Amino acid sequence: MYDDNNIFAKILKGDIPSHKIYEDDTTYAFLDVMPRSDGHTLVIPKADATGLLDASGQVIANCMATIQMLAPKIVDAMGADGFLIQQFNGEAAGQTVFHLHFHIVPRKLGQSLRPHAGEMADPETLASHAHIIRAAL
Amino acid sequence: MYDDNNIFAKILKGDIPSHKIYEDDTTYAFLDVMPRSDGHTLVIPKADATGLLDASGQVIANCMATIQMLAPKIVDAMGADGFLIQQFNGEAAGQTVFHLHFHIVPRKLGQSLRPHAGEMADPETLASHAHIIRAAL
Repeated sequence: MYDDNNIFAKILKGDIPSHKIYEDDTTYAFLDVMPRSDGHTLVIPKADATGLLDASGQVIANCMATIQMLAPKIVDAMGADGFLIQQFNGEAAGQTVFHLHFHIVPRKLGQSLRPHAGEMADPETLASHAHIIRAAL
Repeated sequence: MYDDNNIFAKILKGDIPSHKIYEDDTTYAFLDVMPRSDGHTLVIPKADATGLLDASGQVIANCMATIQMLAPKIVDAMGADGFLIQQFNGEAAGQTVFHLHFHIVPRKLGQSLRPHAGEMADPETLASHAHIIRAAL
């Protein structure tokens, strides 16, 4: 049921650009273009999976290892105080792209999140944040 | 920095009751008493960890395996259409209990979530939901 015409599959193939944060053999991380906070990053497996239920334990473990490595560095680079992990399964849950993805959302004390799948951020702002985060890795 | 006086440690020790959904050697699952939707379940490791960053890969893998097994059964039992995974790190992110926990939040099409850490649910309603979910495992 995995459809490799989804936008994240195209990002993995290099057919669509992304604000890349990190890549290894099994995972890819890039900025969400509709960030709920500055530095909002998506971690995806290179393996095909629509969501959490059709991913192998190893595929999930690879994503979690990347999240564990990246999250504290993103928090520091963005001057945040904590982070939220979110992962949506199914349209009813707010999933809009059917390639498994984990959201790392930096949180600052006293600062509300912008809406999920809200406004597109300015590309120059995203490029700047990606640069700051990559420099902190 | 793990403080074993936190409320989830007390639940694991049996000092505080919980609406148990499932238990194995490494993980424990129970209903959130402030559910964002019916069937909102927490999956926690039995190992000590305050959050995602001080948990081992194996501890996280154990939690994810329990989530993969439970989530579709909770969704079916509650008549939901999808589910959201959330995991909060730090007070700024909304973390209120400093024992690693993953939220499984069932989602129904067209139904909004109640607030995070909102109102306490009626204990009889929780007991009924826990019963329905356990019967579906």
